[in-house]
Amino acid sequence: MDISALLTSAGINIGICCVLFSLYSILRKQPSNRNVYFGRKLAQIRSRTRDPHWFERFVPSPSWIIKAWETSDDVILDVGGLDAVVFMRMLVFSIRIFSIAAIVCTAIVLPLNYYGQEMEHKFIPAESLEVFTTENVKPGSRWLWAHCLALYIISFSACILLYFENKNMTKRRLAYIKGSSQDLSLFAVLVRGIPWSAEESYSTSLKNYFTKYHASSYLSHQMVYHCGKIEKLMKNVREMYDVLYHESIPSCHSCVLPGGRRPNVFNVLVNEPEIIEKGKIDLQDLRDRGKECPAAFVFFRTRYAAACAAKALQSSNPMLWVTHLAPQPRDVYWPNLAIPYRQLWLRRTATLMATAAFLVFFIAPVTLVQSLANLTQLQQAFPFLKGLLKKRYVSQLVTGYLPSVILVLFFYTVPPLMILFSTIEGSISRSGRKRGACCKVLFFTIWNVFFVNIASGTVIKTIKVFSQPKNIPQQLATGAVPAAVKFFMAYVLTSGWTSLACEVVQLYPLLCNFIYKFILRKDHGPFDGEYTFPYHSEVPRVLLFGLLGLTFAILAPLILPLLLVYFCLAYLVYRNQILNVYITDYDSGGKYWPIVQNSAIFSLVVAQVIAIGVFVLKKSTVCFGFTIPLVICTLLFNEYCRRRFLPVFKTFASEILIDLDQQDEQNGRMEAIYEQLKSAYCQFEWLAFGSSKIKQQYICAGEETIKHTQELKPEIKFSEEITPDESVEISPPANHKEEVELIIVDTTP
Amino acid sequence: MDISALLTSAGINIGICCVLFSLYSILRKQPSNRNVYFGRKLAQIRSRTRDPHWFERFVPSPSWIIKAWETSDDVILDVGGLDAVVFMRMLVFSIRIFSIAAIVCTAIVLPLNYYGQEMEHKFIPAESLEVFTTENVKPGSRWLWAHCLALYIISFSACILLYFENKNMTKRRLAYIKGSSQDLSLFAVLVRGIPWSAEESYSTSLKNYFTKYHASSYLSHQMVYHCGKIEKLMKNVREMYDVLYHESIPSCHSCVLPGGRRPNVFNVLVNEPEIIEKGKIDLQDLRDRGKECPAAFVFFRTRYAAACAAKALQSSNPMLWVTHLAPQPRDVYWPNLAIPYRQLWLRRTATLMATAAFLVFFIAPVTLVQSLANLTQLQQAFPFLKGLLKKRYVSQLVTGYLPSVILVLFFYTVPPLMILFSTIEGSISRSGRKRGACCKVLFFTIWNVFFVNIASGTVIKTIKVFSQPKNIPQQLATGAVPAAVKFFMAYVLTSGWTSLACEVVQLYPLLCNFIYKFILRKDHGPFDGEYTFPYHSEVPRVLLFGLLGLTFAILAPLILPLLLVYFCLAYLVYRNQILNVYITDYDSGGKYWPIVQNSAIFSLVVAQVIAIGVFVLKKSTVCFGFTIPLVICTLLFNEYCRRRFLPVFKTFASEILIDLDQQDEQNGRMEAIYEQLKSAYCQFEWLAFGSSKIKQQYICAGEETIKHTQELKPEIKFSEEITPDESVEISPPANHKEEVELIIVDTTP
Repeated sequence: MDISALLTSAGINIGICCVLFSLYSILRKQPSNRNVYFGRKLAQIRSRTRDPHWFERFVPSPSWIIKAWETSDDVILDVGGLDAVVFMRMLVFSIRIFSIAAIVCTAIVLPLNYYGQEMEHKFIPAESLEVFTTENVKPGSRWLWAHCLALYIISFSACILLYFENKNMTKRRLAYIKGSSQDLSLFAVLVRGIPWSAEESYSTSLKNYFTKYHASSYLSHQMVYHCGKIEKLMKNVREMYDVLYHESIPSCHSCVLPGGRRPNVFNVLVNEPEIIEKGKIDLQDLRDRGKECPAAFVFFRTRYAAACAAKALQSSNPMLWVTHLAPQPRDVYWPNLAIPYRQLWLRRTATLMATAAFLVFFIAPVTLVQSLANLTQLQQAFPFLKGLLKKRYVSQLVTGYLPSVILVLFFYTVPPLMILFSTIEGSISRSGRKRGACCKVLFFTIWNVFFVNIASGTVIKTIKVFSQPKNIPQQLATGAVPAAVKFFMAYVLTSGWTSLACEVVQLYPLLCNFIYKFILRKDHGPFDGEYTFPYHSEVPRVLLFGLLGLTFAILAPLILPLLLVYFCLAYLVYRNQILNVYITDYDSGGKYWPIVQNSAIFSLVVAQVIAIGVFVLKKSTVCFGFTIPLVICTLLFNEYCRRRFLPVFKTFASEILIDLDQQDEQNGRMEAIYEQLKSAYCQFEWLAFGSSKIKQQYICAGEETIKHTQELKPEIKFSEEITPDESVEISPPANHKEEVELIIVDTTP
Repeated sequence: MDISALLTSAGINIGICCVLFSLYSILRKQPSNRNVYFGRKLAQIRSRTRDPHWFERFVPSPSWIIKAWETSDDVILDVGGLDAVVFMRMLVFSIRIFSIAAIVCTAIVLPLNYYGQEMEHKFIPAESLEVFTTENVKPGSRWLWAHCLALYIISFSACILLYFENKNMTKRRLAYIKGSSQDLSLFAVLVRGIPWSAEESYSTSLKNYFTKYHASSYLSHQMVYHCGKIEKLMKNVREMYDVLYHESIPSCHSCVLPGGRRPNVFNVLVNEPEIIEKGKIDLQDLRDRGKECPAAFVFFRTRYAAACAAKALQSSNPMLWVTHLAPQPRDVYWPNLAIPYRQLWLRRTATLMATAAFLVFFIAPVTLVQSLANLTQLQQAFPFLKGLLKKRYVSQLVTGYLPSVILVLFFYTVPPLMILFSTIEGSISRSGRKRGACCKVLFFTIWNVFFVNIASGTVIKTIKVFSQPKNIPQQLATGAVPAAVKFFMAYVLTSGWTSLACEVVQLYPLLCNFIYKFILRKDHGPFDGEYTFPYHSEVPRVLLFGLLGLTFAILAPLILPLLLVYFCLAYLVYRNQILNVYITDYDSGGKYWPIVQNSAIFSLVVAQVIAIGVFVLKKSTVCFGFTIPLVICTLLFNEYCRRRFLPVFKTFASEILIDLDQQDEQNGRMEAIYEQLKSAYCQFEWLAFGSSKIKQQYICAGEETIKHTQELKPEIKFSEEITPDESVEISPPANHKEEVELIIVDTTP
């Protein structure tokens, strides 16, 4: 591969990107695609935006880029939550460090590489790529100190930038916690492993336990129920609600109903006992012992008491009365709460092993399928294709592209599979599940894309390299420079640039939408603003490019401009997507930051280790000796950051919690909060609306409404006091009218 | 090495043991050695025991063995604390598992090994040792399943025994916590990293902080001071006290003073302000900001509040207001409290690296010294020895024994060095320091004794083995069977049996005592009941023998009887030592148990991995396949135990703490406890008596007195309220008379 080939490839990819971006700027103006490109703003459509003139609609325009560029971090925080800010800061950090690296490396390293050996240089476009890498430097060259210097500059500026990013993120995280006075989850503790007793129900024994040991701070609790009859009942309710809702507000999301209220669907359904009796559903049964899970949310009077109870080991048997901080109400992953706590360690161990096995042996089945999908096999399996396959260009296409298509398809299965693993693991929150999957995908990517490619091709070779710890640096260095550089440059161009263009165009949802709307003629496609930001696939992707950049910065500086373009594009694209496409249904409060920090340090260390390998290969003992302390310093810096900044991301500082408590007490807001707590966690709402379209109506109307969702959801609650006559109360949302109005007066598109 | 050689070696070692044990049973009856052998009971000597008749004194007797055997675990708990019980349970577990292993292996494995190959067997004593190992089994033999079965039986019985030991130890630990209602440390939290402020002292800002955030539970606090002038002052006090004490109670430890009280040494010294002014010591200075460390003990009103505060992240800056559970008053390691918290991570990292380097490269300097200490070098260095060294037997002695003597000497430096490392690391408690050292010594022993010997000799070879992870099992198996077995059998005999005999005779203290008493003619030797149980050297030793036993059980079953004898002897000897020799100044409350549990599992897994290696070498794929699930099951069992039992050893269950709190509140004991707390932690007592002989008088009088030490120590306290006129109060112990009487009426010897 020479420079001209690289330029050609870059040209093609730039072309594809331009086309896709223009396409996007046109498609987004088509009203029929609004649910694809403006999932977030779906509810606002009818209020103020006018559909642009038909001519305007078909002219590409860069307005979305400008809007994405102009949006401040604070708006991103409001719209996408702290996780979105973390994602953006990760991109900003990458842009900064790679700008520095690009300047340093093109100024110092590139000329040295180019003039590293006495040779006749061709016209630059015809030059081979190797001429620009450390391959071209003579062994024992005294100019290698420049590489070492560049490595020092990059490492130190990375650490300094990382320090300030850490500081910034910590400040934001603290501000986030300080501003979360409305966050009811801070009062709640999830208790699992309630011991079985023959005399009393889980609920009673929980109440007895907490009134005995936490009398002063215990407020109330709410059991988690097994799903069964309830689920069926709720399904009925949901269908009924669906029907009535759509009848009363047909296809109009924002009209005010006559009288200002929606029909009291739930009242009609449930508040009349005879209906329940007709349906032969014994509601007392719901509270039966068999229906209760040994898990519950316990609410405390203060945030500090809840945090204390969540942290402490409650019982002298560590498998009983296990407490966690409760996730936010919308973040709870209900199905996993029913998993008995004593199963969890087994599930975790099993998933860990399964993930490890999957990571290492991922390539094996891929190779198998690839070998099955060759020309002769295909001809045997599908005899009718014989004629077609005999044509030369078709056979070329099949043999050339089919294997890589299979590989890419397999790669696409990884994020959903890792989400599945995280689910099986028993994560109690949706954000935790996604974060777990993110880590797994990250490991997967680093191993299967980075290391396997550097160790030139096969997993077996990679394992061999890693089974001789002493030789890792050299082995990586020999693999990295000549072969992998070319591959990764192409990878940045194709997988990097083009994936961004695809991300912005949202090919798959677009297609589905098209099919639903114009072929199946349905009103609502399957992608109507339903999807949250896929951190579990995007964070690892960006981090991988960071790793590539840092690793190859001094080995092959030509990769840096490509990466810089990628990161700048990514900055704009993801901003646009966060603002327009993805909804923010839950937020982990910046817990992705530790992943970013750790992976940045990991990338730095890998870069340094590979540099050590190169110095050894090039017989430069001085540079080798100077790089060792750099590794140690980087690790020490990491250790410092882990102690100074990261604890804030794991837990809440008592200081802040107590401040919030004291404020609320002084303002007399506590009683209102206690009242809200009773209906904050609603298992049955999840069951009823878990996958329903109606949920969107609440959510997609901008952040104003999201804040109100707490009060909006139908209050289906079980009171704690077990009085025999009580029935399930399903009352309509208290301030429904307010919500409907909110949707109407919502902000500009 | 054949059987007869082994028998000879065993015979010699048995002889040495018998001689030493008899010697011990004589020496312990000599009144002059009481401070060596009865450190614990020193104070009881004059009360009831009569010196035995001179004839009895020189007849060996097994009475100590009987006494050690008869003592129950509860007595051990009373005398040596929970740590001693853990140590004993570890020995009991070892005896049980190796009894089973010995029965299984001599019944199944030994005959199969012996008749493994068709050969003519010699008369057994002349048989080579290899005949009894798996070396003698034919490759591909179908009898290898018996080895696999034996491994299964041993592993499963080990797991079952371990499960019950875990259960038992957890029960004891919980009982220990439940019974610790007198433990004032449960009310205290050590706060470090108090932020510097220009306006107010550390003490004031701490008070402000805790009254703001923990108003309802904060009781009081006590600053930690830098040592300087105070130390000098206290040294003076101590010397004065020493002099006065010895003048008033010359050489008699238990007589009641006229009037029933000791002279008010401290009152005389400090309560008169003119003395202080004469000495030009500005006491106000003590409270000066420069003297305060940014660390303090904060006392809470309830145990639960203290535990909560200790666990929570206090400040939004994780390096400030860092809280730990306070160690018990006698357990505090004061010098380390003055270390700024922000240094700790650096110290920990540095010590970790230093320890790792020391572990790996320990052999290098030893080899260097050994090579320096050869005959020619010695002759050059000390020319006057020339004549002596030319004699044949001397030169044989030098060349044969000097290297191993050097090795042993180097090995003896390891435990103190590891204690030093733990000190540098910044451990805040004496027990924590010892436990840290214990772990380090354990790693050291397993690496430098076990793995280096198995990988046949040198560290370089060992590193090579471990740098090829795939081949570890085979490499270990090839190394383990033929060569290492002989070495380790000899090791059990010499280092095991004989070290026990040496332990009981206490050679070094005995010698020191002899020199001090009969040559220097001093009253008090340096070893007068001053030493606590050396867990950091003895726990790793016992665990190493456990590892040896499990590893070689099926490879060379002949090692099992030797080990069984070792463990039985150890059981008796250590019981005797705990009862008679070592004092129990502080107790970690059974925190050694997790080390034992983890190391038992590690030993099992190593044994299984080596067995896998043997099966591979012997080409028995069936056994190889059957052993893999065994490894997985063992690891799963470990995971289960870690979740079910070990959390109890790390932290206190809220349940128990709250129960204790409620009991105390109901009984109205709280006020008394708050009063005691004011003087519980006394930095200056430590300074004053840290290494003083007088401390013993308080401690060695049996557990009764230990419980009273709280009240006994002179109350040198700094009040929190900074009133300018206040001076250091050093008042005499309130109930001194009681203590003196206690010493007199103490229990039987």
